[in-house]
Amino acid sequence: MILHNFSAGPGTLPTPVRAGLSEALALKPNGQPSIAEVSHRGPAFAAVAEELLERLRRLMGLGDAHQVLLLQGGANLQFAWLPMALRAGRTPAYLTTGHWGEKALAEARRVSPAEEVGSSSDSGYCDLPEMGHLPARCAYLHYTGNETIHGVQFAQPPAVAAPLAADLSSEFLSRPYPYNDLAFAYAGAQKNLGIPGLTVVMIRQDMLDRVPDTLPAYFDYRKWVASGSMLNTPTTLAWFAALETCRWIESCGGLGFFERRNQARAQRLYAFLDRSAFWSNPVAEHARSVMNVPFFPNDENRTADVVSSAEAAGLLGLKGHRALGGLRASLYNALDDAAVETLIDFLGDYERRHG
Amino acid sequence: MILHNFSAGPGTLPTPVRAGLSEALALKPNGQPSIAEVSHRGPAFAAVAEELLERLRRLMGLGDAHQVLLLQGGANLQFAWLPMALRAGRTPAYLTTGHWGEKALAEARRVSPAEEVGSSSDSGYCDLPEMGHLPARCAYLHYTGNETIHGVQFAQPPAVAAPLAADLSSEFLSRPYPYNDLAFAYAGAQKNLGIPGLTVVMIRQDMLDRVPDTLPAYFDYRKWVASGSMLNTPTTLAWFAALETCRWIESCGGLGFFERRNQARAQRLYAFLDRSAFWSNPVAEHARSVMNVPFFPNDENRTADVVSSAEAAGLLGLKGHRALGGLRASLYNALDDAAVETLIDFLGDYERRHG
Repeated sequence: MILHNFSAGPGTLPTPVRAGLSEALALKPNGQPSIAEVSHRGPAFAAVAEELLERLRRLMGLGDAHQVLLLQGGANLQFAWLPMALRAGRTPAYLTTGHWGEKALAEARRVSPAEEVGSSSDSGYCDLPEMGHLPARCAYLHYTGNETIHGVQFAQPPAVAAPLAADLSSEFLSRPYPYNDLAFAYAGAQKNLGIPGLTVVMIRQDMLDRVPDTLPAYFDYRKWVASGSMLNTPTTLAWFAALETCRWIESCGGLGFFERRNQARAQRLYAFLDRSAFWSNPVAEHARSVMNVPFFPNDENRTADVVSSAEAAGLLGLKGHRALGGLRASLYNALDDAAVETLIDFLGDYERRHG
Repeated sequence: MILHNFSAGPGTLPTPVRAGLSEALALKPNGQPSIAEVSHRGPAFAAVAEELLERLRRLMGLGDAHQVLLLQGGANLQFAWLPMALRAGRTPAYLTTGHWGEKALAEARRVSPAEEVGSSSDSGYCDLPEMGHLPARCAYLHYTGNETIHGVQFAQPPAVAAPLAADLSSEFLSRPYPYNDLAFAYAGAQKNLGIPGLTVVMIRQDMLDRVPDTLPAYFDYRKWVASGSMLNTPTTLAWFAALETCRWIESCGGLGFFERRNQARAQRLYAFLDRSAFWSNPVAEHARSVMNVPFFPNDENRTADVVSSAEAAGLLGLKGHRALGGLRASLYNALDDAAVETLIDFLGDYERRHG
């Protein structure tokens, strides 16, 4: 039986990326150090860093106005770091569309004033919010591009005059995106860019002028730019995994290829759920995530049985996040199309047996 | 020719650890996910986390009064985080014995008052400083257990009444250490505990009461304790590498074994350097590091030639840090004894040819 891994993250790796990591770490008869055992300032790792940044910028279609940083700490660290470094005496605004947006806003409020200018919590985070008025001196508008838990996604960035700051963790590199229209974006690597321990931050050059000189060096984005993201020892193996992943994405045809494929199979799954009287997804159609599909059996008490039956059928990682319950299928780039077909077959079969 | 890797970090991995990582990532015919592709909250990774913490605590000989956290961001993040979270309105004190101690003090001063109570900068960081008076309400005394660049090491923690906070990055797990006498300690994994992306933080239970409620969640050590170091997605592969490394350390006989071995070979190298009229190490004998041995040819202009000749002889990673120049041999646990013998032979031979 072939196993399929729907984990929301750390997620499944593309086959060549996993094989490349294994091979890079394999013992060599002469004791040649692996990429994980050499100085990050030496030539072998410098080549990894250079190619990774070049490929990332090309995939993102970035022009000269933006810098790409490779950091640690995940989205959670950016929740506090962003307002500390970039509010510049102004008021950050937040759009809340789920669990992660709530956390981003709560952390911002610990270090600065922050206004919530829209929230879809009244709908149980099953829709996108209406945009209220921005504060007078708006530092930036923060939104969560894709809510990994609630399965709610912005089709496009909100159209506002304020600088846009986006948490793109679970949709980064899943499709072409207007990165050049954003002032700031961040994303953990453990969804579509390899293994945990790497956080990609994109920052528009002019935003760097906002960083207060009084911040600790670690929180000064300018110092990360100046050091090529090597203010301290980077998570070298995660950088290497990210490079292998970028190579794989480009070899498959780039982000356009993945957008078409990801859209098609997400629509197949949503269409199946909508046709079914047994399974459901509660999110408004225009707000549905292409990456993370939460779904529920008509009797909540069945959830545990569904998860274990799915595992027995080789469908792994379908248990929903504890904050929401139910099930969740994460359809990251590295997942095979066959996994989605197998899942739909399994769900149809389960419905016939228990519906 | 067998290659030997003296890199100061990311450093050489024990053979079984590297092999274990490669094997864990190898493709499986049925598509079984690797440890890098499963939820950090699932049973497979929970088993890694539990065994890692158990082994770390046993290796450190920790009693119930201390917590061990597994974080990201390296020592550099702790430089600012520690005083933000644990000064509790008091004045932190710092002992400066090299490059890293300087940085720790500078970062503390960005977020709090901080007093330097001793520095060996007058000696060019070739000795340990005399201890001055502690401030009246001393938050803690910070010291750098082993200066990776300057090769200066405290044989034992300073004897003071204040809570001790130690940067132990490059000596962590190289010998038994009185961890229970410390209030706080931190260490990056990329020296003696595997690969970059993991920072071990040890904190005495009573210090947790000092954390201000107003800090961003990310900087609240209590939240990391409560979540089992899973406030957000951990660097799962670095945790796995750390677990494999702890297993290897214990299988070799534990920290006592490594203390004896590390001492013996460092003394062989220092004795060779002291006998030589061509090579030298400037550090006072009682302050010499067992882990990192900086050394210099009698003519500084020879350094580049020494580095490239050494590489040609299979001795890698000997180039000194750019802040100090010269050469540096890092003698971490995973280095073979044969590497040190080969290095001494090479240096003797180089001296005969060029001395």
